[in-house]
Amino acid sequence: MAQLRLALAQVNACVGDLVGNSKLIVEWTRKAVDDGASVVAFPEMALTGYPVEDLALRKSFAAASRSALDEVAGQLAAAGCGDVLVVVGYLDHDHKGPRNAAALIHNGAVLGRLAKHHLPNYGVFDEARYFVPGDTLPIVRLHGLDIGVVICEDIWQDGGPVAALGEAGVDLVLCINGSPYERNKDDARGPLVARRAAEAGAPMAYVNLVGGQDELVFDGDSLIAAPSGEILARAPQFVEHLLVHDFDLSPGGYGKTGSVGGFEVSRTVVSETPLAAYEPLPGTVAEPLREEAEVWNALVTGLRDYVRKNNFRSVVFGFSGGIDSAVVAALAADALGGAAVHGVGMPSEYSSEHSRSDAADLARRIGAHFQELPIGRQVEVFVSQLGLTGLAEENIQARCRGMTLMALSNQHGHLVLATGNKTELAVGYSTIYGDAVGGFAPIKDVPKTLVWRLARWRNAEAEKNGEVPPIPENSITKPPSAELRPGQVDSDSLPDYELLDAVLDDYIEGDSGFGDLVAAGFAPELVERVLQLVDRAEYKRRQYPPGTKITFKAFGRDRRLPITNAWREHRA
Amino acid sequence: MAQLRLALAQVNACVGDLVGNSKLIVEWTRKAVDDGASVVAFPEMALTGYPVEDLALRKSFAAASRSALDEVAGQLAAAGCGDVLVVVGYLDHDHKGPRNAAALIHNGAVLGRLAKHHLPNYGVFDEARYFVPGDTLPIVRLHGLDIGVVICEDIWQDGGPVAALGEAGVDLVLCINGSPYERNKDDARGPLVARRAAEAGAPMAYVNLVGGQDELVFDGDSLIAAPSGEILARAPQFVEHLLVHDFDLSPGGYGKTGSVGGFEVSRTVVSETPLAAYEPLPGTVAEPLREEAEVWNALVTGLRDYVRKNNFRSVVFGFSGGIDSAVVAALAADALGGAAVHGVGMPSEYSSEHSRSDAADLARRIGAHFQELPIGRQVEVFVSQLGLTGLAEENIQARCRGMTLMALSNQHGHLVLATGNKTELAVGYSTIYGDAVGGFAPIKDVPKTLVWRLARWRNAEAEKNGEVPPIPENSITKPPSAELRPGQVDSDSLPDYELLDAVLDDYIEGDSGFGDLVAAGFAPELVERVLQLVDRAEYKRRQYPPGTKITFKAFGRDRRLPITNAWREHRA
Repeated sequence: MAQLRLALAQVNACVGDLVGNSKLIVEWTRKAVDDGASVVAFPEMALTGYPVEDLALRKSFAAASRSALDEVAGQLAAAGCGDVLVVVGYLDHDHKGPRNAAALIHNGAVLGRLAKHHLPNYGVFDEARYFVPGDTLPIVRLHGLDIGVVICEDIWQDGGPVAALGEAGVDLVLCINGSPYERNKDDARGPLVARRAAEAGAPMAYVNLVGGQDELVFDGDSLIAAPSGEILARAPQFVEHLLVHDFDLSPGGYGKTGSVGGFEVSRTVVSETPLAAYEPLPGTVAEPLREEAEVWNALVTGLRDYVRKNNFRSVVFGFSGGIDSAVVAALAADALGGAAVHGVGMPSEYSSEHSRSDAADLARRIGAHFQELPIGRQVEVFVSQLGLTGLAEENIQARCRGMTLMALSNQHGHLVLATGNKTELAVGYSTIYGDAVGGFAPIKDVPKTLVWRLARWRNAEAEKNGEVPPIPENSITKPPSAELRPGQVDSDSLPDYELLDAVLDDYIEGDSGFGDLVAAGFAPELVERVLQLVDRAEYKRRQYPPGTKITFKAFGRDRRLPITNAWREHRA
Repeated sequence: MAQLRLALAQVNACVGDLVGNSKLIVEWTRKAVDDGASVVAFPEMALTGYPVEDLALRKSFAAASRSALDEVAGQLAAAGCGDVLVVVGYLDHDHKGPRNAAALIHNGAVLGRLAKHHLPNYGVFDEARYFVPGDTLPIVRLHGLDIGVVICEDIWQDGGPVAALGEAGVDLVLCINGSPYERNKDDARGPLVARRAAEAGAPMAYVNLVGGQDELVFDGDSLIAAPSGEILARAPQFVEHLLVHDFDLSPGGYGKTGSVGGFEVSRTVVSETPLAAYEPLPGTVAEPLREEAEVWNALVTGLRDYVRKNNFRSVVFGFSGGIDSAVVAALAADALGGAAVHGVGMPSEYSSEHSRSDAADLARRIGAHFQELPIGRQVEVFVSQLGLTGLAEENIQARCRGMTLMALSNQHGHLVLATGNKTELAVGYSTIYGDAVGGFAPIKDVPKTLVWRLARWRNAEAEKNGEVPPIPENSITKPPSAELRPGQVDSDSLPDYELLDAVLDDYIEGDSGFGDLVAAGFAPELVERVLQLVDRAEYKRRQYPPGTKITFKAFGRDRRLPITNAWREHRA
């Protein structure tokens, strides 16, 4: 038997920050060495951040990534980490093109490189656009154990590198990942990693990125599975974490090299002799978070990293006292602290008194700034000069608010948050250049019914911990209203939110057609009405700046639809 | 020898409009029959429009496309067009997934189907996301001649279906296309089609879509090449056109079927006997347009179809008298007629007198509507209420203009055009939610220096035709200014436009790095300055609604960049 202490470095890399990410890799390897690890694995493209999109096609960036990798190898040796085997994801570029690559570093040098074989090209992934698939599998023998490496999608497709490693023979497989959070994805990861471990006939260690990158959030959830299916270790979600685990394995002493299952297998021996016996650490298996906690943490992580990685320090948004802005305020306070949160009440003649008091109440509870800047005079100038009525008059109110927020952003440097939810955006219950104004929309992927559930959950958590619940009960219970006309409530224009969200989920996430929805038991009139709203919203969306499309990423499928589109599902 | 009259239907399909596109196919086949054609070919996905993006993944849409195809077959027979062989591109979906397909229709039935083999996944194309590649090649014998079909990218890659058709033996190859306009692409198409004709050992007829679809413009440019390399026929660009051509070919009487070069070749005989001899039509070879004419026509086509296909009838935009809005006005008048064009002067205290008179002058020349709506009072309310200074004060002016345009759009139903050019957008010389407001930006892919060239060209064309030149000389010759501060001119903040555009072209279109640009002879200080401007513009772009990225499509490469990105080229 041979012992091995592995460390999975679940870190938060930033796209393009080669210097910062290099530092991160050296620091976390140092920590792993202090914890006695012999092998440290970093996530997919940890050196460049992920996804780099069209930066992958820029040769100067790929060259910088390769240089940074060589420098990291030197820095690791200089930091006294030369003895450990370090696996790092990076962007490579060779004579065939760009590669989503991993390097095996030891003693200041790169021992081997491999490139991702299965390139995902669905949902949020466009890797067929960027990368050339890899077909080499370097295996390194360390302390007598044979270690192979695969990358992310390589385990989500049947066949390919895991099967080839199993055929060639390995004692341990490392899988490095940039696997974005999706609701309930953690339920799929454990069984998948276990299945691939069985396929490889060796334990599999899965290390994932953590943190936000534009429209994606990585949840970490790094884990290790035995070939028997047992989960040996699991990291907590949404935090940087070093998952250290001790193996005691029976070395296979494998020798197969050359062509195996379509891959070119090579072997490098670093050390044949197993380590002297030592007291192993117990395995630590963190529990995945439950539904609302998981979503809340994903939203806080996405917001915090968007603000931080784009060098903002504070946020500003319209604070109406309604449920959407209340939840955004509570998320922002959790992400950045109340002192970085600037709520602005912008009452018009149609704003109710309770809107103003609920917003002020919430600001006090979370320690945020709050000010009132009425929009009446601007609205009056536009309405009278241009003779606005009806929808044009409603929209000018929302737009005067958007302009006020952008002016505060320009003057004081805050990032503007848009407070719209997914349901609203899907049915077009939102004003372009009005309440849609903002650099980041924290709840744009959250359906309205889930917004309410999150509010209740967050308040209950606070009560459990003996804290003041952040969201005033009145914001949760009052009937939702845009307050752009006297006495207006959402239910004037929209179906009941429970029903609406159910239809939208099937239509948008499930890609169901009119017939499927009716067959699923929804009333044809309701389906017709909702599909017309969504179609009309797409029509309104044409007045966005060209190129803008609303995409629904972190919490569901990514839809890329043509702007000009005469197809109407509800007529089918 | 056997004669054959072929018609290539260079038509303007609309995405999603199955009913309208079906009608188009029947009408144009009827025209071809009236012209005596035996074969009619329609472009790639002519039945659904192209590109359908994520509609390809919607099963109800694919099912509707298949039904529409069957209906078209019936309608063709009912319209007395049963005798001709009709080739139509459509969306299919079989047990393996969605297909970019072509059907061969004869006598009211589908004789054969094939799917595109090479799926482009670069630049503006994402077909690896949508389609399963095809590997069947049905060949139909009509009047004794064997006809094969391939689809678009199939001829841009070496090997594959054209080589297989050549090996199996065909007398004529039809290539159906949805090939977007790029500057100078017509220079590449002729030689390419000629080369593939040689490879197939048979003439190749290339039929392309025409018209605008969102950010793409199709230029038509359908053509026919002999295996000798001779261009036998060519259609004019940017107009719907039926290109009719007579062949007199020596039938090969080929019989090879089954597996050929990785494809499954099948053969169907419609008729063995050659047609009785008839007087052939002469070949017509249209000259491709020259540089400025081609660009101008592409812009007019893109604008006209965006407005028309989205059911707008008129456009509105800020009309400052500067070169950008002057060119947009002239384009809009060419696309829609002057009566559908609404220019709005929105002077502030910094607007010069010549701005106002130049705009009014242009409106008179093109027969457009023009009104003045000063923004002074609104600006004053925002500035005094929020204490705005500097950039925040400049931006509020641009934003009051954007709001005015959107209010007019809401009140009167016009589509708002954004008048920014590519240079401005690349360096961030534009206000988000201000002058960037609009549903369509006609010159967003046109560098500033080309805007001037187009203005001079359009005026010269008018003079050549004895018409009033649309653009006042003063708009072309005066120094460009945003007029947001007293005495402000662009050259205060930006390098000379000739130099700036040269660097931007290499950096953005050529993906050159800092080192490449300096090696190309640009001064390092200039390169540093321009790259910093572009980087800073990307930073500003973060304040767009999430998901918005500026892409440069029709006139160059499509760049998809991360929003959060710490990489700075100029530091490399």
